[in-house]
Amino acid sequence: MGKQTVRLEGPVVILGSAAAVGRKEAEGPLRERFDRVFQDSYCGQASWEKAESFLQKTAVRLACGKAGIEPEGLDCVFAGDLLNQCIASAYAQRGLDVPFFGLYGACSTMAESLALAAMTVDGGFARHCAAVTSSHFCSAERQFRTPLEYGGQRSPTAQWTATAAGCCVLARHGEGPRVTHLTWGEVFDAGVTDMSNMGGAMAPAAYKTLWQHFADTGRTPRDYDLILTGDLGALGAEVLTEFFARDGMDLAGRYDDCGLLLFSRETQDVHAGGSGCGCSAAVLCGHVLRGMREGRWKRVLFAATGALMSPTACMQGESIPAICHAAAITTEEE
Amino acid sequence: MGKQTVRLEGPVVILGSAAAVGRKEAEGPLRERFDRVFQDSYCGQASWEKAESFLQKTAVRLACGKAGIEPEGLDCVFAGDLLNQCIASAYAQRGLDVPFFGLYGACSTMAESLALAAMTVDGGFARHCAAVTSSHFCSAERQFRTPLEYGGQRSPTAQWTATAAGCCVLARHGEGPRVTHLTWGEVFDAGVTDMSNMGGAMAPAAYKTLWQHFADTGRTPRDYDLILTGDLGALGAEVLTEFFARDGMDLAGRYDDCGLLLFSRETQDVHAGGSGCGCSAAVLCGHVLRGMREGRWKRVLFAATGALMSPTACMQGESIPAICHAAAITTEEE
Repeated sequence: MGKQTVRLEGPVVILGSAAAVGRKEAEGPLRERFDRVFQDSYCGQASWEKAESFLQKTAVRLACGKAGIEPEGLDCVFAGDLLNQCIASAYAQRGLDVPFFGLYGACSTMAESLALAAMTVDGGFARHCAAVTSSHFCSAERQFRTPLEYGGQRSPTAQWTATAAGCCVLARHGEGPRVTHLTWGEVFDAGVTDMSNMGGAMAPAAYKTLWQHFADTGRTPRDYDLILTGDLGALGAEVLTEFFARDGMDLAGRYDDCGLLLFSRETQDVHAGGSGCGCSAAVLCGHVLRGMREGRWKRVLFAATGALMSPTACMQGESIPAICHAAAITTEEE
Repeated sequence: MGKQTVRLEGPVVILGSAAAVGRKEAEGPLRERFDRVFQDSYCGQASWEKAESFLQKTAVRLACGKAGIEPEGLDCVFAGDLLNQCIASAYAQRGLDVPFFGLYGACSTMAESLALAAMTVDGGFARHCAAVTSSHFCSAERQFRTPLEYGGQRSPTAQWTATAAGCCVLARHGEGPRVTHLTWGEVFDAGVTDMSNMGGAMAPAAYKTLWQHFADTGRTPRDYDLILTGDLGALGAEVLTEFFARDGMDLAGRYDDCGLLLFSRETQDVHAGGSGCGCSAAVLCGHVLRGMREGRWKRVLFAATGALMSPTACMQGESIPAICHAAAITTEEE
């Protein structure tokens, strides 16, 4: 249906979901909403990169537990992360003996993996399929910015990469929120060149995908209890709200951003909010899907955003291309 | 059907395919089999990374031309490459206004993208879908190994990263070779730690996926005119052949490797052969699919292999996890 949106034949059920996070994430407003908290940034592993893999493994194991299957019972896994060559995902999959599709969608990866897993189940290619995504503050800082020991000053528009992983297990049958529509994102570059302002770079991509979702489905923001971007942060969320206001669409009361939900900007020194693949993954798989099961929200539009540059591209003077994939999730009969 | 194999309902037709390569690739044995050759390693762009993006764009444009559609007429693109944050793919997509799914499967990405594109078409989610993959010798060397200016000595087991991109356009209707079966790969780590011996690290993953393909489908190597791995190189291809010989399966006369096909090891100083996402992409999309259209092969099993480590993981003492996805392609009625 429409230019970029597919309506799933369904049902595609989120049978189980789980989030594993670090200490700072567990000190934020969503502290009660995660399945596992690691107090140690190494999660008992020998490096931050290995810790990030361990976060993914933990999220997969817990989500499968809730779905009532063994991880080995998955037909396939879609996974991605921010590290060069997506090693957090590849090493997390080692030894699992489950088919694996590696993804790179930067911070949009939770929506990308959810979309591809949902299509794989809906197309009849798999019975149980997992979507999992992670990030880690320490592994991301040293790869994208400066070594932590350097103690670099952060810009007010900078966001704080979450130490977190989230996993959804999708199936054709069972109880749970259902994925009904997917709106695939296009790469859009608004010309932003400031690597410390990802929210500003990604907001136009979020606007385009959400706008297209409404156009393709005939829905409006009022059809959703919650429209959730991730991770635009304070600046990006403001830009997005303003774009829709210009179109006469008021998002007030039904819009939020994973980067603003995960941390307290008042007490946690995260500047513009949270970011990283793991941020929207943990907020969706921990907080939001739990809330849907509790009846807090009936219809959610999850729209994860990613900034697709690299340090090399930016050093070559490139601006930041961005993308946003969206998935409509419901607990209502439709 | 079976543990890791899906049989597509079909037809899923490869409506058009094209390969764009660099000068060294065009000086090899397949010189007549590519659609576009760039004599300049920069392809007229300002950097090698931008050149690699341009190779992808060129392959997409040419493959769409052969498929008889405009690139803008694609419903979605699956793309990946070897660069950190997969920037060759993201920047190639910028401005195309087509939904994009970014992948990371190292040198297995052509098979991964082909598999996901084929399922997307077969599941009825898209009418026209592209799978595209690239690599570039110069951008890969400086990222994974040493700056070219350094002139480092290469090990005899090392492979030469191809400067190349390949693209397939898949559709539900039309004329062309058809994708019939997909065997999804699992991550397998045989414990190899030598980053200069990727073929050795990947051969066991190729063996596992091919073995599973035969088990799941009830087929044997004799059911294929060509079984094509990519890119195991000389050492990996020998290991794979030996593994199957031990099982009493003789691959002689019907097995080849993209890394061995692309370059002449006698005259081109590539040591164990070609590698890089673009190697299997260009050999498949240039040479092999052309050969199938010409009637040279009727049934091909394309099994691209990837080594999923990163320099960081190897510096932390990790061994090399590998993966292999396979796609059966035919011009016969089945």
